[in-house]
Amino acid sequence: MPNKKFPIENKNKITRIAKRGHYDKKTIYSILDETLICTLAFVRDGIPFQIPTLFCRIGNTIYIHGSVGAGYMRLFDDEKIPVNISVHLLDALVLARSAFHHSANYRSVIIFSQPKPITNKKKILQILEVLTNRIHPNRWNDVRAISKKELLATKIIAFPIQSASAKIRTGPPIDDEEDYNSKYWAGIIPIETKREKPISDPKLNPKIKIPKYLKK
Amino acid sequence: MPNKKFPIENKNKITRIAKRGHYDKKTIYSILDETLICTLAFVRDGIPFQIPTLFCRIGNTIYIHGSVGAGYMRLFDDEKIPVNISVHLLDALVLARSAFHHSANYRSVIIFSQPKPITNKKKILQILEVLTNRIHPNRWNDVRAISKKELLATKIIAFPIQSASAKIRTGPPIDDEEDYNSKYWAGIIPIETKREKPISDPKLNPKIKIPKYLKK
Repeated sequence: MPNKKFPIENKNKITRIAKRGHYDKKTIYSILDETLICTLAFVRDGIPFQIPTLFCRIGNTIYIHGSVGAGYMRLFDDEKIPVNISVHLLDALVLARSAFHHSANYRSVIIFSQPKPITNKKKILQILEVLTNRIHPNRWNDVRAISKKELLATKIIAFPIQSASAKIRTGPPIDDEEDYNSKYWAGIIPIETKREKPISDPKLNPKIKIPKYLKK
Repeated sequence: MPNKKFPIENKNKITRIAKRGHYDKKTIYSILDETLICTLAFVRDGIPFQIPTLFCRIGNTIYIHGSVGAGYMRLFDDEKIPVNISVHLLDALVLARSAFHHSANYRSVIIFSQPKPITNKKKILQILEVLTNRIHPNRWNDVRAISKKELLATKIIAFPIQSASAKIRTGPPIDDEEDYNSKYWAGIIPIETKREKPISDPKLNPKIKIPKYLKK
């Protein structure tokens, strides 16, 4: 990583509780890689719109895929349209002694970008492989491969990360000094997001068992 | 609920896979009430910005709170600024026989609104109670109450839901007819988001035990 940090600019600067702001690529990339869904925001006729979608990161670029027929995918043919991409992970609820200091432990990232449609077929296949393996590692090697027709129906948009910042809160509640002797319980309630055991499609041939790589 | 559905307009219409679109308030409200974090999108100097934040719904209105000193909270003093609010819940990863039909089971909501700052102190307290009890039911009755000074430092913005839609996918993968006889496993991997056992603040007086209402 030649530049380890995104420059702090007006638009990506964390102004509210500045110490929670992070600009280094390692931190930002790790949050992105742990999140499956991002939210794309863009402006149409002066009004903000949002689209939640699966995504992957390769290097300093976010990729999404969709149908060539989707309206918002066509919108991203305009490489000048500013797009904001956000992800967030909720790690814990933070219960302070005072109502005022209740909070959440979270990791969020905001990205500023502009779209670049990908047209190279080889590159599209590479990205679809990464996207599919985000759904589950190794899945790409155990599926009926993309057909030519399906490839033509699939659109991939790249969003190079032009500017970004992360905001992170961790740790126990922070109360006012005089509240630490109060009678109220304080602490955190961790939020756990887990992949449960796979459930076979009711239409699956009963001879096909759940493959090993899906049981991890 | 006098009007049970939001009118289908250009901006909230689900055009891509229209059958996944829902406009009835019951469905939209239930998704909102199950989600802790929403993402607000707004436009500044022609560029889209996003803010993830805790929220609550009361009737047909979304409420957020923040510091009077936060830049984006001041931005919402302008009651004409269009704001888009989104939430999403990831319920399962959907693994089809074909790479192409991989998907996710999700429930998402998009809301179109404009901000209305709340200035009535009694109303602010009511909303803070609902917000605190979203962090955990009954918590409001077991905290050091908001002081006058804290109340003055807190800003509440209401976002009446002017237009909204939900998009939902459920069920097993849908493959091409000819793929149902293939050798590949297909099914779903459910994603479970759970509140774990509370962890006491290391600075907590050890005589204070975790209250019963937090153990549920």
